[in-house]
Amino acid sequence: MFFNSKNIEAIQLKSLLRITRAISHVRDLNSLITLLASETSKVLDVERSTVFLHSSKTDELWSYVAEGESEEIRFSASHGIAGSVFRSEKTLVLNDVSKDQRFNKAIDKTTGFITRNMITAPIINPSRVCIGVFQVINKKDDNFTTKDVHFLEIVSSETAVTIENVRLLESRERMFEDLIKALTVSIEARDPLTAGHSFDVTFLSGKIADYMNIDCDIKEAIYYAALLHDYGKIAVPDSILKKPGTLSEDETAILRKHVHHTKIILSSIEFEGKLEQVPLFASQHHERIDGKGYPDGLKGDEISIGGKIIAVADVFEALTAKRHYREPYSLKKTLNLLIDGIGTQFDRKAVLALRDYFIDIGKLSAEEVPVD
Amino acid sequence: MFFNSKNIEAIQLKSLLRITRAISHVRDLNSLITLLASETSKVLDVERSTVFLHSSKTDELWSYVAEGESEEIRFSASHGIAGSVFRSEKTLVLNDVSKDQRFNKAIDKTTGFITRNMITAPIINPSRVCIGVFQVINKKDDNFTTKDVHFLEIVSSETAVTIENVRLLESRERMFEDLIKALTVSIEARDPLTAGHSFDVTFLSGKIADYMNIDCDIKEAIYYAALLHDYGKIAVPDSILKKPGTLSEDETAILRKHVHHTKIILSSIEFEGKLEQVPLFASQHHERIDGKGYPDGLKGDEISIGGKIIAVADVFEALTAKRHYREPYSLKKTLNLLIDGIGTQFDRKAVLALRDYFIDIGKLSAEEVPVD
Repeated sequence: MFFNSKNIEAIQLKSLLRITRAISHVRDLNSLITLLASETSKVLDVERSTVFLHSSKTDELWSYVAEGESEEIRFSASHGIAGSVFRSEKTLVLNDVSKDQRFNKAIDKTTGFITRNMITAPIINPSRVCIGVFQVINKKDDNFTTKDVHFLEIVSSETAVTIENVRLLESRERMFEDLIKALTVSIEARDPLTAGHSFDVTFLSGKIADYMNIDCDIKEAIYYAALLHDYGKIAVPDSILKKPGTLSEDETAILRKHVHHTKIILSSIEFEGKLEQVPLFASQHHERIDGKGYPDGLKGDEISIGGKIIAVADVFEALTAKRHYREPYSLKKTLNLLIDGIGTQFDRKAVLALRDYFIDIGKLSAEEVPVD
Repeated sequence: MFFNSKNIEAIQLKSLLRITRAISHVRDLNSLITLLASETSKVLDVERSTVFLHSSKTDELWSYVAEGESEEIRFSASHGIAGSVFRSEKTLVLNDVSKDQRFNKAIDKTTGFITRNMITAPIINPSRVCIGVFQVINKKDDNFTTKDVHFLEIVSSETAVTIENVRLLESRERMFEDLIKALTVSIEARDPLTAGHSFDVTFLSGKIADYMNIDCDIKEAIYYAALLHDYGKIAVPDSILKKPGTLSEDETAILRKHVHHTKIILSSIEFEGKLEQVPLFASQHHERIDGKGYPDGLKGDEISIGGKIIAVADVFEALTAKRHYREPYSLKKTLNLLIDGIGTQFDRKAVLALRDYFIDIGKLSAEEVPVD
């Protein structure tokens, strides 16, 4: 027994190391909790682990991860062992569940699984709120020990931290995205005729990026850059922005300055990590492959991938939308114009990606938009 | 020895539980790492633990937490045991440092501490970049064991995850704040005469909140609400916003709608947690205690604390700033006007807080701004 328990402890330390390392390398919450569950089952030598989270809306516990079950398990948070631990916030060890009145036989009946013994530990978040329970079921060949309880409590504490960190980060990311969308809406609210333009450009840029197999992180930067590409228009006076007729040379120069403003404004934001290139992408959407664009007259691959993609989406959206001075172009006419502009105004791959997208969704046939 | 090692392991599991729980309840990075270091010293029975982080700018290792040292330790990342582990990214156990050529005696000379033995483990972040090393020094009465190494590697992995999570969250928070500042600047850029207004209102709101002992989380919401309080002006046409003369009744009505726009725009952002009240605070800065304000004509405590504070800061800033139609008011005149408005236009506590602030920084005496 001493040897045995000693070995278990050695295994447990090693497992904790493996778990902690894994946590530090996985970002997706579901994979993380699945990993925590499977490692825990291995270390504690149990048949399965289940992580139940609490839904405050319905006051139910539901299986976020349930080893061996493909269907979600869901029940009232005032029922069963899990409900009892959830409410008391105290770990419960049962070496024979059949002797405990709280045991909810209905779940075994539904799943066909037979529960013999279990430890159920509360998952308590940093604000000291219980957010669920971690359950290990059916220790093989033995009873649960105090050390098993300690181990499960460590893992359940890790689970709480992990969930909280992911939730906090997601909440901040959501707020960041909301804020950018809100300011995009508010900029466009100045001119009802162009309202929705940036959102359409964002959608199309995403499709082009998909068809070009752009890396996920770069796609996220393109997403924000597309939403923000016209933000600099905030510095363009109403008299020019909303002018129904043709702009004078001076007025055009002022309007074109919006790209410069976009760059200046966005550069004041310390976009970090995968979003680092947002200001660059956003401020290059009027550059042209032949170097005749603005503001910097960049050529070919001097233009960033984001700049090339947003340029195509931007012109496409502008041509197919109604403007103060003309009716919208047809899809066929617009795509053919973009194809004509390949190598002069536009990047070849970006135009072909957009063409492929519209062919794939059945909006037109390849013959209608021929490419050399 | 068996008993001993068994006990150590039992202690280690319990300690890990304590550490993991502590991590889940502390948000401040320095406290967290300090806690990790002191717990590790206790469990491994060593004289001190040190966490060195790498500065990529200077390619140095510096002591983020150094038990027993009040001064920062800093040296080139290519020197000493720490530098060697940092570069190799492999844990190194030395039961007699004097036998290792890499050992940097200079640090002991500076600190007066005598290093006998140590384990140094790399701290590797989720992107698999080594960001520092975790060092435990001078095991009391014994040599280091493999289990000690496992334990230190777990702790150093925890350290990596913790640092990464805090950094990621801080990076998102910084970007969020930058974005809000950038849009505040860009809104105000439309009218040079009011540029800086929102930042001044934000600064003053912060001072008022300080003097009212407002809770830290509420203060953060007030901070963002103050930055954003005039964001709705984006929907007000240039012709009204920049009009030098008096506004007509209709124009005034349109200008006043900016509060409504602020509310609508901000409500589309899912402000969460401590920032939940940002839209509410921002859209109540023209309410009055006597119910004669707008947009909702709220009275007394129907107005949120944020609304009351920003209202005072907003009027103060407007009166002390130059406008199209008049010169700035003096500090004394402005504060006396605010004091006159207590109970009708303004909240008493908010006005007195602002008054106390200016008296404290010596801008005027209590006699110059008497209160009944």
